Amino acid sequence: MTNESRDAAMETPIAKRILIGEPLTSEKLDEQLLPKKMALPIFASDALSSVAYAPQELLMILLIGGLSFLAFSPWVAAAVVVLLIVVVISYRQLIKAYPSGGGDYEVASKNLGEVPGVVVASALLVDYVLTVAVSVASGVDNIISALPFLNSFRVELAVLFVIVIIVVNLRGVREASLVFAIPTYVFIGSVLLMIVVGIARMLLGDAPVAASAGYTVQAESLSQAAIILLILRAFSSGCSALTGVEAVSNGVPAFRKPKIRNAQMTLTLMGTIAIILFAGLTLLALVAGVHYAENPCHLIGFDCTQPQPSLMAQVASATFGMGSIPFYIIQAATALVLLLAANTAFNGFPLLGAVLARDGYAPKALNTRGDRLVYSNGMIILGLAAVVVLVVYQANLTTLIQLYIIGVFVSFSLGQIGMVRHWRRVMRELKALSPEAAAQESAASTRRSARAGLVINSAGAALTVFVLLIVTITKFTHGAYLVFIAIPILATLMIGVNRYYRDVEHEIAVDDSTHFGSSGDVAMVLVNRLQKPVIKAIDYALAAKHEKTFAVHVSTTKEETDELQRQWQEHRIPVQLLVIDSPYRMFASPVATFIDKYREKNGSAVVTVYLPQYIVGHWWESILHNRRSRRIANQLMLVHGVSITLVPWLLDSSELIYGRRSRPLPGQERGGRPSQVPQPKHLRASRPAGPPETADSRSDGGPPANGGGDAANRP
Amino acid sequence: MTNESRDAAMETPIAKRILIGEPLTSEKLDEQLLPKKMALPIFASDALSSVAYAPQELLMILLIGGLSFLAFSPWVAAAVVVLLIVVVISYRQLIKAYPSGGGDYEVASKNLGEVPGVVVASALLVDYVLTVAVSVASGVDNIISALPFLNSFRVELAVLFVIVIIVVNLRGVREASLVFAIPTYVFIGSVLLMIVVGIARMLLGDAPVAASAGYTVQAESLSQAAIILLILRAFSSGCSALTGVEAVSNGVPAFRKPKIRNAQMTLTLMGTIAIILFAGLTLLALVAGVHYAENPCHLIGFDCTQPQPSLMAQVASATFGMGSIPFYIIQAATALVLLLAANTAFNGFPLLGAVLARDGYAPKALNTRGDRLVYSNGMIILGLAAVVVLVVYQANLTTLIQLYIIGVFVSFSLGQIGMVRHWRRVMRELKALSPEAAAQESAASTRRSARAGLVINSAGAALTVFVLLIVTITKFTHGAYLVFIAIPILATLMIGVNRYYRDVEHEIAVDDSTHFGSSGDVAMVLVNRLQKPVIKAIDYALAAKHEKTFAVHVSTTKEETDELQRQWQEHRIPVQLLVIDSPYRMFASPVATFIDKYREKNGSAVVTVYLPQYIVGHWWESILHNRRSRRIANQLMLVHGVSITLVPWLLDSSELIYGRRSRPLPGQERGGRPSQVPQPKHLRASRPAGPPETADSRSDGGPPANGGGDAANRP
Repeated sequence: MTNESRDAAMETPIAKRILIGEPLTSEKLDEQLLPKKMALPIFASDALSSVAYAPQELLMILLIGGLSFLAFSPWVAAAVVVLLIVVVISYRQLIKAYPSGGGDYEVASKNLGEVPGVVVASALLVDYVLTVAVSVASGVDNIISALPFLNSFRVELAVLFVIVIIVVNLRGVREASLVFAIPTYVFIGSVLLMIVVGIARMLLGDAPVAASAGYTVQAESLSQAAIILLILRAFSSGCSALTGVEAVSNGVPAFRKPKIRNAQMTLTLMGTIAIILFAGLTLLALVAGVHYAENPCHLIGFDCTQPQPSLMAQVASATFGMGSIPFYIIQAATALVLLLAANTAFNGFPLLGAVLARDGYAPKALNTRGDRLVYSNGMIILGLAAVVVLVVYQANLTTLIQLYIIGVFVSFSLGQIGMVRHWRRVMRELKALSPEAAAQESAASTRRSARAGLVINSAGAALTVFVLLIVTITKFTHGAYLVFIAIPILATLMIGVNRYYRDVEHEIAVDDSTHFGSSGDVAMVLVNRLQKPVIKAIDYALAAKHEKTFAVHVSTTKEETDELQRQWQEHRIPVQLLVIDSPYRMFASPVATFIDKYREKNGSAVVTVYLPQYIVGHWWESILHNRRSRRIANQLMLVHGVSITLVPWLLDSSELIYGRRSRPLPGQERGGRPSQVPQPKHLRASRPAGPPETADSRSDGGPPANGGGDAANRP
Repeated sequence: MTNESRDAAMETPIAKRILIGEPLTSEKLDEQLLPKKMALPIFASDALSSVAYAPQELLMILLIGGLSFLAFSPWVAAAVVVLLIVVVISYRQLIKAYPSGGGDYEVASKNLGEVPGVVVASALLVDYVLTVAVSVASGVDNIISALPFLNSFRVELAVLFVIVIIVVNLRGVREASLVFAIPTYVFIGSVLLMIVVGIARMLLGDAPVAASAGYTVQAESLSQAAIILLILRAFSSGCSALTGVEAVSNGVPAFRKPKIRNAQMTLTLMGTIAIILFAGLTLLALVAGVHYAENPCHLIGFDCTQPQPSLMAQVASATFGMGSIPFYIIQAATALVLLLAANTAFNGFPLLGAVLARDGYAPKALNTRGDRLVYSNGMIILGLAAVVVLVVYQANLTTLIQLYIIGVFVSFSLGQIGMVRHWRRVMRELKALSPEAAAQESAASTRRSARAGLVINSAGAALTVFVLLIVTITKFTHGAYLVFIAIPILATLMIGVNRYYRDVEHEIAVDDSTHFGSSGDVAMVLVNRLQKPVIKAIDYALAAKHEKTFAVHVSTTKEETDELQRQWQEHRIPVQLLVIDSPYRMFASPVATFIDKYREKNGSAVVTVYLPQYIVGHWWESILHNRRSRRIANQLMLVHGVSITLVPWLLDSSELIYGRRSRPLPGQERGGRPSQVPQPKHLRASRPAGPPETADSRSDGGPPANGGGDAANRP
């Protein structure tokens, strides 16, 4: 075991290391950066995979109005495509202006202020959770479409997949992208092929026919207003194709240089592919006559005790034949890309959490890079939240879709409005320039791009705000109100956390009153029974040469106290033992009272309380130790002038993990023979067998075996 | 706030105190002892309440064979009564011989050895959990019998009641008994009255008729063997009337003196009442023609979408009329006594857990008396386990009854066998006496009682072993196998815990190698940013006058480090600041390496690492603090020669709870004016305004305001 790997091991419990892999050094951070061909599958899986459910949900809502309503679908799909184009172009501007990975959050907070900023952050956090839930639910749907016998394990499968994704992601971005590249490209390739084959068959007069083409639905008679609302609802559901577009803007720092250009190209490529797949699939579904109903029992002719195959599965089986190899490839690729789309959120959520923690809007623990250079805390929170959502909504895609998109469009809208402000400020700044500076080429180019940006982002803002209104109106009563509850709660929490940190910062800031000069120095070693850890604590207290050192025993039963005093004599412990009676059978408060009285009588002093602390090798051992000692420590820290010194006692079991213990092995007690168990090199180096110039040889020269209190001088 | 109540407050977080009540002093322990009239409801609620379900389950099983099988019921019920008598008499012996409250566990482990002892303990623990589950499920059944609209909240109600019982019990035995006495006596009284009224009506020729008397069941045709098995199964289910008899033997220490005699009398009284109620209810149910089916849909004539009323409800409505006031009184008393019967387990389980912890078979945390002189940890574990069982089995009484009783009869049997051994040993010891001693009156009386005990407990052992066999055979495949999995697992865990504690005890035992003499004394204050908590830590480190004291900063970004060094200069911090670069962006391991190298170069020494620790006022604040500091402490404790000194920094919010903070209020900074917020008296006493003989006045004499590091000298 080298010094370095031992350092790494210290920061990582062993179980974690097996699951997650060895920690990475700083230099490796650069290697973690993504080339475009890797960035596409990582950041695009969300946006691309959403074509697996967006056409389905669009057609499904229209079908509520009856088969004739499907005639609206090309127009609705076209509107979605136009929106997608505008949003992609808008985000190209955003990436250029704010390449630090803060995305909409950064744009909104810098240009619109704190509240819009945390609202965007909250909306994004909610949406990351829903992205995981929706993607996994749709992935499971597509698996069940191919393997219907799994239908009864829908929720279990969904939860299992989330757990797998968490583990994969905790292993780090790079490995993840290798895993993700293949299915994403297979998905793009196979769905494109399916669209081409389907259109070719249609042109050759052998158009594919879906199994559900023969089913009819009982149409409700709708009022004019209800018809418009239904079309708008279909459009809203179709807009789920846009989710994930923002992922690239949040991930710019993960790109290789030139970061902005690479990110923009990836975004454009992703948008193009998404449009082709979305439009192609919708067309093919219409051609094949796919009838997908919100409630499958409303489909006349369909046995609704069976799971309804997804639109993707119906198109694939119509094009290639049910049970054919291409059918299974498409279903597998779709399911994989959907499951892996959840990964986009596992990239984005922890990054946003870290940005929020950095800005003081989230607990600082979210800004601690985990062992694999990723923000593990955020990933675990995201995964757990998604599991809760999936279990509560029983992994039902249509229900989950109702909650979705709101958050995306909240952040789209505020981000775009923020960009409009940004460009207007840039133009104001240009105007404020001196005439000479303004005449320069660079200023002219800035002015041109600011103008273009202003136009683009104004259009983006107008359109996304409009769509946000539509989405809110059409989805509010279908469950989306929950999102409108969650976002303000999260935003309020964030502002609360920020104010809290600010207050504490203010409270602990060093000011002119900085003043040293505490005096008096008393050490008290708490003793329950006389055992080696206590001996070591006394040894350390003596080594620190406090002005006064004594042992304190809280007596609850007379027998134990008498026995302790007897042993104290027998082993000739060189410190005084004070006994405090405890009428309440409590430990901490009699000691606290004793310390208070001592300080009243002898003048205030820093009182250092020594407590042995067991270090164990297995998690379950901590259930069996240290409970009382921890309670006592917490309680004594409330007493004036007290500090707590924890003297570690490494039980033998800790050797399994940390390579050391507080007690020498039996064979070593006298001769200092090397341990049978391999020890870290640097530890062996300072053993008695090592260089004689270390002070260790001093106390090991004498004959007495040294069982207790060894760690300081006999490492 | 007096000194005493402040001591008490220190041991109890405020939320706990509001819910549970003020802690009790030792002297109050005597007042907690139970007079007989209180002990009966407390310890008898389990045994008595089981008559609410035992006759029902007995008749229900017989009904599987058809209406004609009800003819067996008097004989089966008589067998249960005989068994009950034998068991009660046997336990009178056990109470006399082992009055310490260890019950069957103590008898088995002292007379039969460790393994039978832990098997009994495991069986009892399992049964305590099932007692809670079965009693609550049956209680909810009886509530639903009176208020059928609650049927859809069965599980929720059950869980709610368990939570209420936990809280009531955490408040302590005494209050609990007051709450419990009334419903138990009302239950006994009203059911007795019902039996008398029912029998009187029968004798007067106006026998009560149950609503289900007209329903028939489709009888399966059974083989001879199946008939015998069915009758034995009915007997097994009827034996659930015996559960809870052992409770008194585990509770002897809670009785007033003479403990043994009072406990025996309570046991006998309880047994008598239980027999009367059990026999009376069974008789009345037969007279009224109650037909209660395992599957209500097998009852011809019954609408099985409705909840089936419990036997108690059917008898009560037949006797007094459905919806009459006595009916509701009986249902309410039955439900209450059943819900409160769970309390027996909440007395027994934590007591047994504490006994096991004392003997080293369970985590020592179970032997910590809680604030209300009860073993709160055990109660919480029991409550949670019962909730899990109730949720898993959907609070279904019939399913839960299948798991029940096994554990009771395992401990009955082993306890009785242990008693047989006990009496035989007593007789051997009497034989070994010298002839003169043996001739004395006391020896003769001992011999007489030993002979009687041997006879009684031999009969008890034979009978309970026989019943255990029957119960096992008839219930094993109906779910009881789970108990046969749980008991060995628990027993193995207990033995494992015992071996673990024994090994650790051996490992840390003081031996001849006791040796003091660690030398070298270095203090390192870890500094991230220069803030008041760090200043206080430095102040304390200086006050402890270590041989060397310096500050250590782990540098991850150059800007922060430069800023720190600038501030260090500016505030003229009187210790040297060492900067360690961290290429891994880690904190603990660079410090660990630094300490190792330091010790290699300068000779081994005790290195005291000072870490500021935030003390906060609200639980949620701990999410926002101390994460990294705790991780660093845990990791540095693995380094040779290191001890960790936690220097508490009480944030302002902590004042809400603990009455103090580390930073003086603004008004106090210069003048030492009293705080606007009331402070505990003893703290005010040693303020600068207090007696001038305290050393405090020393450092407050000078003009500099003392913002940081105040706690030692300016309390």
